[in-house]
Amino acid sequence: MNYPTTIANLIECYKKLPGIGGKTAERLALATLNLPDEITDVFSDSIKNVKNNTKRCQRCNSFCENDLCDICKDKTRDESVICVVEDPKNVILFEKVGVFKGVYHVLNGLISPLDGVSPDDINIDALLKRIKDENIKEVIIAVKPTIEGETTALYISKLLEKEPVMVSTIAHGIPLGSEMEYMDSLTLEIAIQERKKISDKQ
Amino acid sequence: MNYPTTIANLIECYKKLPGIGGKTAERLALATLNLPDEITDVFSDSIKNVKNNTKRCQRCNSFCENDLCDICKDKTRDESVICVVEDPKNVILFEKVGVFKGVYHVLNGLISPLDGVSPDDINIDALLKRIKDENIKEVIIAVKPTIEGETTALYISKLLEKEPVMVSTIAHGIPLGSEMEYMDSLTLEIAIQERKKISDKQ
Repeated sequence: MNYPTTIANLIECYKKLPGIGGKTAERLALATLNLPDEITDVFSDSIKNVKNNTKRCQRCNSFCENDLCDICKDKTRDESVICVVEDPKNVILFEKVGVFKGVYHVLNGLISPLDGVSPDDINIDALLKRIKDENIKEVIIAVKPTIEGETTALYISKLLEKEPVMVSTIAHGIPLGSEMEYMDSLTLEIAIQERKKISDKQ
Repeated sequence: MNYPTTIANLIECYKKLPGIGGKTAERLALATLNLPDEITDVFSDSIKNVKNNTKRCQRCNSFCENDLCDICKDKTRDESVICVVEDPKNVILFEKVGVFKGVYHVLNGLISPLDGVSPDDINIDALLKRIKDENIKEVIIAVKPTIEGETTALYISKLLEKEPVMVSTIAHGIPLGSEMEYMDSLTLEIAIQERKKISDKQ
């Protein structure tokens, strides 16, 4: 006795998602059986159409529904500052905070020689072209602080050495509200190295 | 800047599933974007059709694709022993173990007055009818050992008092391979009460 074919297929599909193992996939598939029809209709259509309906902005490579994303179309943004992120998700993260008023450039991931991802694969050439064509004054590199992220940041900053732009990276250190004891040693090390003067009586 | 409509819809749908919060739903929706077409096609179709394609066996109420489930159709099973479970999933659980050779009766959940679920709502009348009509010798009640499960087991055993059948429940105690220190006190209590004699030299 096994699950009927459709449930078995559904379990296999859920298992393809990251972080979903066999038991969870089973639980999700059986829960799907109990969803109201209006949800399963939207769910099914969204899965079928998500790839076709989701375009990438021709300028910044972020998610959009037409040719340009809302940020690139927004004339109130400071178009001289580009924030470079590794994933369209991170554009939405920064926009939720709402403090950055420039524009974005979304890479297709990070340089990772072990996974066969070279600098040519991640949309860096388009960044260089934008810096040459548009009147960019500052590039903020906002990638995650892992080996791949650091490699990508270093590569981009080297590449931009000859260009008349300021290049910066987002600050690394102890996140606000966190317990010091749970911080890893590399973060503590960088937090000491990058310390900020608050008074100078010496 | 928000997610494009289709991604936003997909996030909302994933959030309807049990144990999936906002962050996980976002991660799953973005992962869905990267699934190959052949997976998203099956995924989408399965979600759309799972309810219509999944029938319940007319005899035991387990999952099936036609009128009777594979177990009820299987003439080699011992049709005089019925194992009563609360969910079709548990039939598959017991079948994976493979030790039970009788047939099943699947309840629609457990009696739970707090949630408004009364004995009339969970397919107990069909069980009684089977015991009267089919030549049943033993009923094994295999529901989970919670208040709802115990209530349901008690209700069914009272109901069957007048019928010429043996009624039993599955054994409760310490699961094999578990650490005693992590056992709750009720399980330890039942493990002592239901102790099994292994030698009698007294």
